[in-house]
Amino acid sequence: MKVRVGIIGATGYTAYEAIRLLLRHPHAEVTAVTSRQDEGLSIAAVHPQLTSRLDLPLQPLDIDSFAQQCDVAFCCLPHGASAETVKQLRQANCKVIDFSADFRLTSVAEYETWYGVKHPWPEQVGQVAYGLPELFADQIKDADLIANPGCYPTSAIMPLAPLIQAGAIHCEDIIVDSKSGVSGAGRSPKLGTLYCETNESIAPYAIGAHRHQPEMNDIIGRFSGSKTNILFTPHLTPMDRGILSTIYVRPQAADAKRVREIWRQTYRDSPFVRVVDHIPGTKHVAGTNFVDLAVKEAGDRLVLVAAIDNLIKGASGAAVQNLNCIFGWDQTLGLL
Amino acid sequence: MKVRVGIIGATGYTAYEAIRLLLRHPHAEVTAVTSRQDEGLSIAAVHPQLTSRLDLPLQPLDIDSFAQQCDVAFCCLPHGASAETVKQLRQANCKVIDFSADFRLTSVAEYETWYGVKHPWPEQVGQVAYGLPELFADQIKDADLIANPGCYPTSAIMPLAPLIQAGAIHCEDIIVDSKSGVSGAGRSPKLGTLYCETNESIAPYAIGAHRHQPEMNDIIGRFSGSKTNILFTPHLTPMDRGILSTIYVRPQAADAKRVREIWRQTYRDSPFVRVVDHIPGTKHVAGTNFVDLAVKEAGDRLVLVAAIDNLIKGASGAAVQNLNCIFGWDQTLGLL
Amino acid sequence: MKVRVGIIGATGYTAYEAIRLLLRHPHAEVTAVTSRQDEGLSIAAVHPQLTSRLDLPLQPLDIDSFAQQCDVAFCCLPHGASAETVKQLRQANCKVIDFSADFRLTSVAEYETWYGVKHPWPEQVGQVAYGLPELFADQIKDADLIANPGCYPTSAIMPLAPLIQAGAIHCEDIIVDSKSGVSGAGRSPKLGTLYCETNESIAPYAIGAHRHQPEMNDIIGRFSGSKTNILFTPHLTPMDRGILSTIYVRPQAADAKRVREIWRQTYRDSPFVRVVDHIPGTKHVAGTNFVDLAVKEAGDRLVLVAAIDNLIKGASGAAVQNLNCIFGWDQTLGLL
Amino acid sequence: MKVRVGIIGATGYTAYEAIRLLLRHPHAEVTAVTSRQDEGLSIAAVHPQLTSRLDLPLQPLDIDSFAQQCDVAFCCLPHGASAETVKQLRQANCKVIDFSADFRLTSVAEYETWYGVKHPWPEQVGQVAYGLPELFADQIKDADLIANPGCYPTSAIMPLAPLIQAGAIHCEDIIVDSKSGVSGAGRSPKLGTLYCETNESIAPYAIGAHRHQPEMNDIIGRFSGSKTNILFTPHLTPMDRGILSTIYVRPQAADAKRVREIWRQTYRDSPFVRVVDHIPGTKHVAGTNFVDLAVKEAGDRLVLVAAIDNLIKGASGAAVQNLNCIFGWDQTLGLL
Repeated sequence: MKVRVGIIGATGYTAYEAIRLLLRHPHAEVTAVTSRQDEGLSIAAVHPQLTSRLDLPLQPLDIDSFAQQCDVAFCCLPHGASAETVKQLRQANCKVIDFSADFRLTSVAEYETWYGVKHPWPEQVGQVAYGLPELFADQIKDADLIANPGCYPTSAIMPLAPLIQAGAIHCEDIIVDSKSGVSGAGRSPKLGTLYCETNESIAPYAIGAHRHQPEMNDIIGRFSGSKTNILFTPHLTPMDRGILSTIYVRPQAADAKRVREIWRQTYRDSPFVRVVDHIPGTKHVAGTNFVDLAVKEAGDRLVLVAAIDNLIKGASGAAVQNLNCIFGWDQTLGLL
Repeated sequence: MKVRVGIIGATGYTAYEAIRLLLRHPHAEVTAVTSRQDEGLSIAAVHPQLTSRLDLPLQPLDIDSFAQQCDVAFCCLPHGASAETVKQLRQANCKVIDFSADFRLTSVAEYETWYGVKHPWPEQVGQVAYGLPELFADQIKDADLIANPGCYPTSAIMPLAPLIQAGAIHCEDIIVDSKSGVSGAGRSPKLGTLYCETNESIAPYAIGAHRHQPEMNDIIGRFSGSKTNILFTPHLTPMDRGILSTIYVRPQAADAKRVREIWRQTYRDSPFVRVVDHIPGTKHVAGTNFVDLAVKEAGDRLVLVAAIDNLIKGASGAAVQNLNCIFGWDQTLGLL
Repeated sequence: MKVRVGIIGATGYTAYEAIRLLLRHPHAEVTAVTSRQDEGLSIAAVHPQLTSRLDLPLQPLDIDSFAQQCDVAFCCLPHGASAETVKQLRQANCKVIDFSADFRLTSVAEYETWYGVKHPWPEQVGQVAYGLPELFADQIKDADLIANPGCYPTSAIMPLAPLIQAGAIHCEDIIVDSKSGVSGAGRSPKLGTLYCETNESIAPYAIGAHRHQPEMNDIIGRFSGSKTNILFTPHLTPMDRGILSTIYVRPQAADAKRVREIWRQTYRDSPFVRVVDHIPGTKHVAGTNFVDLAVKEAGDRLVLVAAIDNLIKGASGAAVQNLNCIFGWDQTLGLL
Repeated sequence: MKVRVGIIGATGYTAYEAIRLLLRHPHAEVTAVTSRQDEGLSIAAVHPQLTSRLDLPLQPLDIDSFAQQCDVAFCCLPHGASAETVKQLRQANCKVIDFSADFRLTSVAEYETWYGVKHPWPEQVGQVAYGLPELFADQIKDADLIANPGCYPTSAIMPLAPLIQAGAIHCEDIIVDSKSGVSGAGRSPKLGTLYCETNESIAPYAIGAHRHQPEMNDIIGRFSGSKTNILFTPHLTPMDRGILSTIYVRPQAADAKRVREIWRQTYRDSPFVRVVDHIPGTKHVAGTNFVDLAVKEAGDRLVLVAAIDNLIKGASGAAVQNLNCIFGWDQTLGLL
């Protein structure tokens, strides 16, 4: 019998991508999809790509009935709303992979500062596995609740954490300049993500003030003796999907060769990490769960480059990978 | 009588853009267009947008006849080839605005290291006005030969030079992370600039090794007591045009307010510089000669943002602006 | 003294484009901009491209004060709302170029059927000049109210009307398959025009049911003895701007050569019509007021191709051209 | 043991897509990849997306060694060159799925007229199964050589053939207006497919003169008593992939409801055909082997709409589907 997965908040891009991946999964199936706004519509009315693939009605979320229909919830609600729902789902004994930021940080205070809301389930904060199996496999295995990583943090943590841990780079001088496709901004109609606003234009936003910056520092800080000081600048880029992070660091007696060695050693059992000699672009990983990593020496700095698909390794692929880890399946099921 | 401008190497994107701008210029006209490869074709056969606008045949370059037809040459040849032609044009008494990099650097040795060719006219190197009227008006006025700036350098020099000059930022810790539209790569068919290679993808290239890096250091260095040390990373971005440079600097007792003051003071007579409070995107300047500048404080750094149209302020608009300066016309003629 | 133009409903894409064109116009200036939703903001806050170019606050529309500030109104309101305002503007003696469809059709009944609203000023319907100067110059000259044409109709009427008039094609078998950039759908946030919905996708909509179909039949019918029967299918195309109409007609003893002759004869004094031998793409006319027309023979049919910029010849450029005609200026002022 | 598939001419977009699909196939594996121009490089050097997925060197084609390494050839060579190679492969007893047009038409004379080359293996012409399993399953089953359909023809034949067969539409009045992503133009560097030439532009080409027009007539003609007369106009559309065909037909006592019935009946066992009530866009089928079909009534015509992914159902997905049919596997293996 297949593991039954329900998608909470199923009308967005990450939800669609999760469904698409799960339809290909040998041991999992999608058994419920919820939406407040589009209740009653079929999932294919909202995502026409799913016509003939998945025939489920969007239902309003009722925790009890959901927990009877599903073994695992992919919770795609916004922060704040998510933690509240996650709490109820856990009480109903449903495993949860939470796409929101609600359980990613270890500090309630930090969370409340950056997210501007009171945390609905503060006791749980700091107790939840961060869903990067490449770095936190032990915590994810057998977990009942997983904080699915942010898209930008994934592209920064994966190249940086092993180098920080190995002492190969300085903690206090790290710049992460990231470029993301527009799907990262979600599917709610807003002026800023209209085609004619974003097409043929690139622009930074939330410079040094994006909520993913404390997430990067929090997670990478776990690999460091001292706190990291990452300056993060995201850019909205005229493409559907993909994140390219160009990361400027100062080496400590390490060169490009050493960086590649550390990466290859750390990720030797990680099928989705590719340490490449060429310079990757987001198209190389589009539609996949891969993380392509490269490094170049440039004067007294090293420039790290990471490319992911923001909707897959940066969201739904990671969720499926976490699902695989929770159930002890091969990490790559449904993902290659 | 109008000033007669000829375009040498008229089949590329910058050449087209120059023609388009000059067609709107009250005191200039295009009187000759040259091309080796497309000799005999009409200019509109190569640029269909020019149908009914400009009726000139592409001719092979003959210096003498060209100099009789034109008062000024816009020389759009590749480096190396350009300097050779520029020399002949100057000997034939034609004023020249050189779009190539051949006369931008002050050191022949540096040029030959980065460009890998012997300089065809080394005596002239270091004697040529750098065509940023906002910073080098005195040299440009009455000049007979102008080195039209590189597109990326324009986006870096304009925000950085005044701050370096004012001592507001450190010289030795500057990162320029630039994102350019594909037109910057030229119009020659190459795998890397095919639609399906660049669309839906962003990637860095020539990290710390692009020829515009020494140009930035050379020009900005003129405003500094000590040599600057700029690390430059360009990115190919899926859009036709535009450069967005995100620049990471360390302030010296300066904050964002002070930076804006310095910019506004330096550029108080520069109609194309806009110091803005919002964060600019390339679409705000597309099709214009404007440079939009913004600054944000982020931890112990300042993040400068500059947006230009790479084909206009980054190439052909700058050339027309230089033309205006040479002839003592209002800087904005043909450009607003 | 310059003619004073006010823009009513100034926050959309066509309004911006109109302002951009008028800023370059030698005899006109923008003296007022109105918006209900963004009242109080500066126009540059809504259109950052206008920073340093136009310094006007968005005001709510007050007819009396508007009529004192402006000689001419560019009315960019939605249908229904527009006619009501136009009526008041005319009563206040303001000339009006109406961007809406309210005065394009000759029949109130037809209008009310297709637009689903009661016409606010039915007496005026059928009395208003249709703003295609290439075909209706006599009516436009000295007019006080002009119905600015629809974008799709412009791309269909200009190639078809002369051929219908000359009897060169059959009236009853015409298919107009049009492809439009996304800006045609306006600037209000809607799911369907989000970047990730329209990018990398093309789809038809309103097949045989678009409101521009009766407009095409109405206007072209004026050149025909019998009613035309046009089947019109628009497609949303992943690009900012441009309309390409591929038109399938049956010739009546006419071949491609004859079609070109008719076009060249009809449009011999029309500086914006280019009859070309190559096949035009929308990029050839992007940013311009040109209409590129081509024809190919294909079996027993002729295929006509028309390319325009939907925001310029399809909207704001046409408005400026009409302004020029009303005031007896050269048609091309502000437009080349 | 898996069926061994070799890709001949492996550097293009369809070849990559075929490899990507085969990597997911449970019963097939890629065992050889050939290229004349990039001999010696690894396949991942040419397609960086394949890094860590497929480790094979590009080899020059040697028929004997290829036939020993492979049970089936996916032959991605250009027309003319393909037939020659196909002949040798068949003589070496290798099954072949031919991506070229060499065996699609039934008449050698027609082939030589449209393709301008002498057919290298004329005896075979007219003997080869046309690889649309939805319509030619009987011929494909057990075939050793399959003519993989053209991308545009797939999008026209699938909606039209059943209607022609049922007598629901007229044969002699059919217009196919197709819009294709740029990948259909191949991966060889050419001016016309550079990013800056095709981005932000749409244009028709080869109006009534494209080689896929006789293919449509030939294949659809097999379902008709009389010859069809299709007028076909392709358009280059600014997107990577996808074909949208808008097809104008005249019904014979059939309405939209009847058309859907015929489609549903014909394709009742075809898992990749979706008859939909909404209007499909290419994004709904991007990355899939689906054909989405819709119909609208419009005056005295019916408008049929078909959407496919040109690289999948229009090329490599069809090839894998044919492979499945040849070996008697479920049609969907590797494709969902």
